Amino acid sequence: MEKTRFEKQLEFIVEIDKMTHVLRRTLLTDCSRRENDAEHSWHIGVMAMILREYAEPGVDVARVVQMCLVHDLIEIYAGDTFAFDKQANLDKTQREKAAADRLYALLPVEQGTELRALWEEFDAEQTKDARYAAAMDHLQPFIHNCVTGGHTWKEGEVTRAQVLERMRIVREATPALWPYVEKNIEKGVSAGLIRE
Amino acid sequence: MEKTRFEKQLEFIVEIDKMTHVLRRTLLTDCSRRENDAEHSWHIGVMAMILREYAEPGVDVARVVQMCLVHDLIEIYAGDTFAFDKQANLDKTQREKAAADRLYALLPVEQGTELRALWEEFDAEQTKDARYAAAMDHLQPFIHNCVTGGHTWKEGEVTRAQVLERMRIVREATPALWPYVEKNIEKGVSAGLIRE
Repeated sequence: MEKTRFEKQLEFIVEIDKMTHVLRRTLLTDCSRRENDAEHSWHIGVMAMILREYAEPGVDVARVVQMCLVHDLIEIYAGDTFAFDKQANLDKTQREKAAADRLYALLPVEQGTELRALWEEFDAEQTKDARYAAAMDHLQPFIHNCVTGGHTWKEGEVTRAQVLERMRIVREATPALWPYVEKNIEKGVSAGLIRE
Repeated sequence: MEKTRFEKQLEFIVEIDKMTHVLRRTLLTDCSRRENDAEHSWHIGVMAMILREYAEPGVDVARVVQMCLVHDLIEIYAGDTFAFDKQANLDKTQREKAAADRLYALLPVEQGTELRALWEEFDAEQTKDARYAAAMDHLQPFIHNCVTGGHTWKEGEVTRAQVLERMRIVREATPALWPYVEKNIEKGVSAGLIRE
Protein backbone atom coordinates (compact mmCIF):
# COMPACT_ATOMS: atom_id res chain seq x y z
CA MET A 1 0.00 0.00 0.00
CA GLU A 2 1.27 3.46 -0.96
CA LYS A 3 2.24 5.52 2.07
CA THR A 4 0.22 8.65 2.81
CA ARG A 5 1.84 12.07 2.42
CA PHE A 6 2.16 12.39 6.17
CA GLU A 7 3.67 8.92 6.55
CA LYS A 8 6.35 9.88 4.03
CA GLN A 9 7.00 13.18 5.76
CA LEU A 10 7.17 11.45 9.13
CA GLU A 11 9.68 8.92 7.83
CA PHE A 12 11.81 11.79 6.51
CA ILE A 13 11.60 13.64 9.84
CA VAL A 14 12.78 10.56 11.73
CA GLU A 15 15.50 9.80 9.15
CA ILE A 16 17.07 13.25 9.30
CA ASP A 17 17.59 12.87 13.05
CA LYS A 18 20.71 10.97 11.88
CA MET A 19 22.29 14.40 11.28
CA THR A 20 23.07 14.29 15.01
CA HIS A 21 25.52 11.47 14.26
CA VAL A 22 27.35 13.08 11.34
CA LEU A 23 30.45 14.46 13.04
CA ARG A 24 32.34 17.38 11.58
CA ARG A 25 36.02 18.12 12.11
CA THR A 26 35.18 21.38 13.85
CA LEU A 27 35.20 21.46 17.65
CA LEU A 28 32.48 23.07 19.73
CA THR A 29 33.64 26.47 20.99
CA ASP A 30 34.50 25.03 24.43
CA CYS A 31 36.68 22.31 22.78
CA SER A 32 34.70 19.57 24.58
CA ARG A 33 33.98 17.52 21.44
CA ARG A 34 33.43 17.67 17.68
CA GLU A 35 30.19 19.28 16.57
CA ASN A 36 27.63 17.42 14.50
CA ASP A 37 25.73 18.45 11.40
CA ALA A 38 22.46 19.18 13.22
CA GLU A 39 24.25 21.58 15.58
CA HIS A 40 26.21 23.19 12.75
CA SER A 41 23.09 23.67 10.62
CA TRP A 42 21.24 25.26 13.52
CA HIS A 43 24.18 27.52 14.31
CA ILE A 44 24.56 28.91 10.78
CA GLY A 45 20.78 29.38 10.55
CA VAL A 46 20.89 31.66 13.59
CA MET A 47 24.03 33.37 12.24
CA ALA A 48 22.18 34.16 9.00
CA MET A 49 19.56 35.94 11.13
CA ILE A 50 22.07 37.79 13.33
CA LEU A 51 24.40 38.92 10.54
CA ARG A 52 21.80 39.86 7.93
CA GLU A 53 22.87 43.53 7.87
CA TYR A 54 26.10 42.40 6.14
CA ALA A 55 24.29 40.53 3.34
CA GLU A 56 24.07 41.98 -0.15
CA PRO A 57 20.90 43.98 -0.91
CA GLY A 58 18.25 41.63 -2.27
CA VAL A 59 19.17 38.60 -0.17
CA ASP A 60 16.05 36.88 1.19
CA VAL A 61 17.32 36.09 4.69
CA ALA A 62 14.26 34.06 5.72
CA ARG A 63 14.87 31.85 2.70
CA VAL A 64 18.59 31.58 3.46
CA VAL A 65 17.80 30.41 6.99
CA GLN A 66 15.83 27.51 5.51
CA MET A 67 18.63 26.79 3.06
CA CYS A 68 21.06 26.63 5.99
CA LEU A 69 18.91 24.06 7.79
CA VAL A 70 18.89 21.64 4.86
CA HIS A 71 22.25 22.34 3.19
CA ASP A 72 24.00 19.32 4.75
CA LEU A 73 21.16 16.77 4.85
CA ILE A 74 22.77 14.68 2.13
CA GLU A 75 25.69 14.05 4.51
CA ILE A 76 23.47 11.54 6.35
CA TYR A 77 24.48 9.16 3.57
CA ALA A 78 27.47 10.93 1.98
CA GLY A 79 29.28 11.76 5.23
CA ASP A 80 30.98 15.04 6.07
CA THR A 81 33.81 15.92 3.70
CA PHE A 82 36.60 17.84 5.44
CA ALA A 83 37.10 21.08 3.54
CA PHE A 84 40.89 20.73 3.59
CA ASP A 85 41.02 17.03 2.53
CA LYS A 86 41.87 17.10 -1.20
CA GLN A 87 41.48 13.35 -1.68
CA ALA A 88 38.01 13.17 -0.13
CA ASN A 89 36.86 16.13 -2.21
CA LEU A 90 37.60 14.30 -5.49
CA ASP A 91 34.44 12.16 -5.39
CA LYS A 92 32.36 14.48 -3.17
CA THR A 93 29.97 15.54 -5.95
CA GLN A 94 29.23 11.96 -6.98
CA ARG A 95 28.71 10.76 -3.39
CA GLU A 96 26.40 13.67 -2.59
CA LYS A 97 24.32 13.24 -5.74
CA ALA A 98 23.70 9.58 -4.90
CA ALA A 99 22.82 10.57 -1.33
CA ALA A 100 20.34 13.19 -2.57
CA ASP A 101 18.68 10.62 -4.86
CA ARG A 102 18.13 8.37 -1.85
CA LEU A 103 17.16 10.99 0.73
CA TYR A 104 14.71 13.10 -1.23
CA ALA A 105 12.90 10.02 -2.53
CA LEU A 106 11.51 9.60 1.00
CA LEU A 107 9.33 12.70 0.62
CA PRO A 108 6.23 13.29 -1.52
CA VAL A 109 7.62 13.90 -5.02
CA GLU A 110 7.04 17.64 -5.36
CA GLN A 111 8.35 18.28 -1.85
CA GLY A 112 11.48 16.21 -2.44
CA THR A 113 12.08 18.08 -5.68
CA GLU A 114 11.68 21.44 -3.96
CA LEU A 115 14.05 20.63 -1.09
CA ARG A 116 16.60 19.14 -3.43
CA ALA A 117 16.50 22.29 -5.55
CA LEU A 118 17.21 24.36 -2.45
CA TRP A 119 20.27 22.20 -1.70
CA GLU A 120 21.45 22.34 -5.34
CA GLU A 121 21.08 26.12 -5.32
CA PHE A 122 23.18 26.27 -2.14
CA ASP A 123 25.78 23.96 -3.61
CA ALA A 124 26.14 25.91 -6.87
CA GLU A 125 26.78 29.23 -5.01
CA GLN A 126 25.43 31.20 -7.97
CA THR A 127 22.48 33.09 -6.45
CA LYS A 128 22.73 35.89 -3.87
CA ASP A 129 20.87 33.73 -1.35
CA ALA A 130 23.20 30.77 -1.87
CA ARG A 131 26.27 32.97 -1.58
CA TYR A 132 25.14 34.46 1.71
CA ALA A 133 24.33 30.96 3.01
CA ALA A 134 27.76 29.73 1.90
CA ALA A 135 29.40 32.68 3.66
CA MET A 136 27.70 31.63 6.90
CA ASP A 137 28.70 28.00 6.28
CA HIS A 138 32.37 28.96 5.91
CA LEU A 139 32.42 31.69 8.55
CA GLN A 140 31.06 29.48 11.35
CA PRO A 141 33.94 26.95 11.43
CA PHE A 142 36.34 29.89 11.00
CA ILE A 143 34.94 31.47 14.18
CA HIS A 144 35.21 28.10 15.92
CA ASN A 145 38.85 27.87 14.82
CA CYS A 146 39.49 31.35 16.23
CA VAL A 147 38.26 30.26 19.67
CA THR A 148 39.60 26.67 19.69
CA GLY A 149 43.26 27.36 18.96
CA GLY A 150 42.90 26.71 15.24
CA HIS A 151 41.87 23.08 15.73
CA THR A 152 41.09 22.13 12.11
CA TRP A 153 43.81 24.40 10.73
CA LYS A 154 46.35 22.38 12.69
CA GLU A 155 44.69 19.05 11.94
CA GLY A 156 44.64 19.82 8.21
CA GLU A 157 48.15 21.37 8.23
CA VAL A 158 46.53 24.21 6.37
CA THR A 159 48.32 27.07 4.63
CA ARG A 160 47.38 30.75 4.50
CA ALA A 161 46.59 30.38 0.80
CA GLN A 162 44.15 27.53 1.54
CA VAL A 163 42.32 29.49 4.23
CA LEU A 164 42.17 32.59 2.02
CA GLU A 165 40.68 30.48 -0.79
CA ARG A 166 38.22 28.78 1.58
CA MET A 167 37.06 32.15 2.93
CA ARG A 168 36.78 33.86 -0.47
CA ILE A 169 32.98 33.57 -0.38
CA VAL A 170 32.89 35.59 2.85
CA ARG A 171 34.88 38.37 1.19
CA GLU A 172 32.51 38.34 -1.78
CA ALA A 173 29.11 37.83 -0.09
CA THR A 174 29.70 39.73 3.17
CA PRO A 175 32.62 42.09 2.46
CA ALA A 176 32.11 44.05 5.69
CA LEU A 177 33.15 40.93 7.61
CA TRP A 178 36.38 40.52 5.68
CA PRO A 179 38.61 42.63 8.01
CA TYR A 180 37.72 40.23 10.87
CA VAL A 181 38.66 37.23 8.74
CA GLU A 182 41.86 38.76 7.39
CA LYS A 183 43.03 39.85 10.83
CA ASN A 184 42.44 36.40 12.29
CA ILE A 185 44.17 34.62 9.43
CA GLU A 186 47.26 36.72 10.11
CA LYS A 187 46.97 36.01 13.84
CA GLY A 188 46.73 32.30 13.01
CA VAL A 189 49.84 32.49 10.87
CA SER A 190 51.76 34.42 13.57
CA ALA A 191 50.74 31.85 16.19
CA GLY A 192 51.87 28.97 13.96
CA LEU A 193 48.32 27.58 13.62
CA ILE A 194 48.23 28.30 9.89
CA ARG A 195 51.27 27.63 7.70
CA GLU A 196 52.84 30.32 5.55
CA MET B 1 35.86 50.93 24.98
CA GLU B 2 32.39 50.17 23.66
CA LYS B 3 32.32 47.00 21.55
CA THR B 4 31.48 47.35 17.86
CA ARG B 5 28.20 45.93 16.56
CA PHE B 6 30.02 43.00 15.02
CA GLU B 7 31.98 42.28 18.22
CA LYS B 8 28.69 42.07 20.12
CA GLN B 9 27.15 39.83 17.47
CA LEU B 10 30.24 37.63 17.46
CA GLU B 11 30.12 37.25 21.24
CA PHE B 12 26.46 36.23 20.97
CA ILE B 13 27.23 33.71 18.21
CA VAL B 14 29.95 32.10 20.34
CA GLU B 15 27.78 32.18 23.49
CA ILE B 16 24.81 30.40 21.91
CA ASP B 17 27.04 27.46 20.99
CA LYS B 18 26.31 26.47 24.63
CA MET B 19 22.92 25.23 23.37
CA THR B 20 24.83 22.07 22.42
CA HIS B 21 25.27 21.40 26.15
CA VAL B 22 21.66 21.93 27.23
CA LEU B 23 20.37 18.38 27.40
CA ARG B 24 16.70 17.61 27.01
CA ARG B 25 14.89 14.58 28.43
CA THR B 26 14.04 13.38 24.95
CA LEU B 27 16.21 10.66 23.40
CA LEU B 28 17.50 10.78 19.84
CA THR B 29 15.39 8.52 17.61
CA ASP B 30 18.02 5.73 17.77
CA CYS B 31 17.97 5.86 21.62
CA SER B 32 21.75 6.43 21.69
CA ARG B 33 21.63 9.49 23.95
CA ARG B 34 19.58 12.49 25.03
CA GLU B 35 19.24 15.22 22.45
CA ASN B 36 20.41 18.76 23.08
CA ASP B 37 18.72 22.10 22.47
CA ALA B 38 20.69 22.92 19.31
CA GLU B 39 19.65 19.61 17.73
CA HIS B 40 16.04 20.00 18.86
CA SER B 41 15.82 23.57 17.53
CA TRP B 42 17.23 22.51 14.18
CA HIS B 43 14.87 19.54 13.99
CA ILE B 44 11.69 21.55 14.63
CA GLY B 45 12.87 24.22 12.17
CA VAL B 46 13.04 21.60 9.41
CA MET B 47 9.72 20.12 10.58
CA ALA B 48 8.09 23.54 10.22
CA MET B 49 9.23 23.53 6.57
CA ILE B 50 8.16 19.93 5.87
CA LEU B 51 4.74 20.12 7.53
CA ARG B 52 3.71 23.60 6.38
CA GLU B 53 0.71 22.28 4.43
CA TYR B 54 -0.93 21.48 7.80
CA ALA B 55 -0.51 25.02 9.18
CA GLU B 56 -3.44 27.41 9.41
CA PRO B 57 -3.87 29.77 6.44
CA GLY B 58 -1.91 32.95 7.11
CA VAL B 59 0.99 31.34 8.95
CA ASP B 60 4.32 32.81 7.80
CA VAL B 61 6.35 29.59 7.71
CA ALA B 62 9.67 31.31 6.95
CA ARG B 63 9.16 33.42 10.08
CA VAL B 64 8.17 30.37 12.13
CA VAL B 65 11.38 28.61 11.11
CA GLN B 66 13.35 31.51 12.59
CA MET B 67 11.19 31.44 15.71
CA CYS B 68 11.97 27.74 16.08
CA LEU B 69 15.71 28.36 15.92
CA VAL B 70 15.68 30.87 18.79
CA HIS B 71 12.76 29.62 20.93
CA ASP B 72 14.99 27.83 23.46
CA LEU B 73 18.02 30.15 23.58
CA ILE B 74 17.17 31.33 27.09
CA GLU B 75 17.73 27.75 28.28
CA ILE B 76 21.49 28.39 28.02
CA TYR B 77 21.06 30.08 31.40
CA ALA B 78 17.62 28.85 32.54
CA GLY B 79 18.17 25.17 31.70
CA ASP B 80 15.68 22.85 30.04
CA THR B 81 12.46 22.43 32.02
CA PHE B 82 10.95 18.97 31.60
CA ALA B 83 7.39 19.42 30.35
CA PHE B 84 6.04 16.84 32.80
CA ASP B 85 7.90 18.15 35.90
CA LYS B 86 5.31 20.20 37.84
CA GLN B 87 7.77 21.43 40.46
CA ALA B 88 10.30 22.75 37.93
CA ASN B 89 7.54 24.49 35.99
CA LEU B 90 6.57 26.62 39.01
CA ASP B 91 9.47 29.07 38.64
CA LYS B 92 10.07 28.54 34.91
CA THR B 93 8.76 31.97 33.86
CA GLN B 94 10.94 33.80 36.36
CA ARG B 95 14.07 31.82 35.48
CA GLU B 96 13.55 32.34 31.77
CA LYS B 97 12.90 36.06 32.10
CA ALA B 98 16.16 36.52 34.00
CA ALA B 99 17.95 34.43 31.38
CA ALA B 100 16.51 36.56 28.56
CA ASP B 101 17.64 39.77 30.31
CA ARG B 102 21.18 38.39 30.39
CA LEU B 103 21.32 36.79 26.95
CA TYR B 104 19.78 39.48 24.79
CA ALA B 105 21.91 42.18 26.44
CA LEU B 106 24.87 40.71 24.53
CA LEU B 107 23.47 41.95 21.21
CA PRO B 108 23.15 45.49 19.83
CA VAL B 109 20.08 46.90 21.60
CA GLU B 110 17.57 46.90 18.73
CA GLN B 111 18.62 43.41 17.67
CA GLY B 112 18.34 42.02 21.19
CA THR B 113 14.89 43.60 21.50
CA GLU B 114 13.77 42.08 18.21
CA LEU B 115 14.98 38.57 19.02
CA ARG B 116 13.54 38.73 22.51
CA ALA B 117 10.17 39.77 21.06
CA LEU B 118 10.27 36.73 18.78
CA TRP B 119 10.85 34.45 21.80
CA GLU B 120 8.13 36.21 23.83
CA GLU B 121 5.71 35.81 20.94
CA PHE B 122 6.54 32.09 20.80
CA ASP B 123 6.15 31.74 24.52
CA ALA B 124 2.75 33.47 24.65
CA GLU B 125 1.28 31.15 21.95
CA GLN B 126 -1.20 33.85 20.93
CA THR B 127 -0.34 34.47 17.27
CA LYS B 128 -0.86 31.99 14.42
CA ASP B 129 2.90 31.85 13.85
CA ALA B 130 3.61 31.12 17.52
CA ARG B 131 0.95 28.44 17.65
CA TYR B 132 2.34 26.64 14.61
CA ALA B 133 5.85 26.87 16.11
CA ALA B 134 4.55 25.51 19.42
CA ALA B 135 2.84 22.64 17.60
CA MET B 136 6.21 21.68 16.07
CA ASP B 137 7.90 22.06 19.47
CA HIS B 138 5.43 19.63 21.08
CA LEU B 139 5.08 17.27 18.13
CA GLN B 140 8.82 16.59 17.79
CA PRO B 141 9.34 14.99 21.23
CA PHE B 142 6.05 13.15 20.73
CA ILE B 143 7.42 11.60 17.53
CA HIS B 144 10.63 10.76 19.39
CA ASN B 145 8.56 9.07 22.11
CA CYS B 146 6.73 7.05 19.46
CA VAL B 147 10.03 5.64 18.16
CA THR B 148 11.92 5.33 21.46
CA GLY B 149 9.44 3.20 23.41
CA GLY B 150 7.87 6.20 25.14
CA HIS B 151 11.07 7.16 26.91
CA THR B 152 9.97 10.43 28.55
CA TRP B 153 6.41 9.15 29.09
CA LYS B 154 7.84 6.37 31.23
CA GLU B 155 10.40 8.62 32.91
CA GLY B 156 7.71 11.16 33.81
CA GLU B 157 5.14 8.47 34.76
CA VAL B 158 2.80 10.41 32.54
CA THR B 159 -0.95 9.94 32.25
CA ARG B 160 -3.14 10.05 29.14
CA ALA B 161 -4.69 13.28 30.41
CA GLN B 162 -1.27 14.90 30.71
CA VAL B 163 -0.24 13.91 27.19
CA LEU B 164 -3.58 15.07 25.79
CA GLU B 165 -3.12 18.43 27.51
CA ARG B 166 0.49 18.72 26.35
CA MET B 167 -0.53 17.98 22.75
CA ARG B 168 -3.56 20.29 22.72
CA ILE B 169 -1.66 22.90 20.67
CA VAL B 170 -1.12 20.31 17.90
CA ARG B 171 -4.86 19.66 17.77
CA GLU B 172 -5.55 23.39 17.57
CA ALA B 173 -2.75 24.60 15.27
CA THR B 174 -2.40 21.56 12.98
CA PRO B 175 -5.71 19.67 13.30
CA ALA B 176 -4.93 17.40 10.33
CA LEU B 177 -2.13 15.86 12.39
CA TRP B 178 -4.38 15.08 15.33
CA PRO B 179 -5.41 11.56 14.23
CA TYR B 180 -1.72 10.54 14.27
CA VAL B 181 -1.31 11.92 17.78
CA GLU B 182 -4.53 10.41 19.11
CA LYS B 183 -3.77 6.99 17.65
CA ASN B 184 -0.31 6.96 19.18
CA ILE B 185 -1.50 8.10 22.59
CA GLU B 186 -3.87 5.13 22.63
CA LYS B 187 -1.08 2.82 21.48
CA GLY B 188 1.08 4.20 24.29
CA VAL B 189 -1.65 3.54 26.83
CA SER B 190 -2.22 0.01 25.51
CA ALA B 191 1.50 -0.72 25.70
CA GLY B 192 1.68 0.56 29.28
CA LEU B 193 3.96 3.48 28.33
CA ILE B 194 1.33 6.06 29.24
CA ARG B 195 -0.81 5.65 32.37
CA GLU B 196 -4.57 5.61 32.23
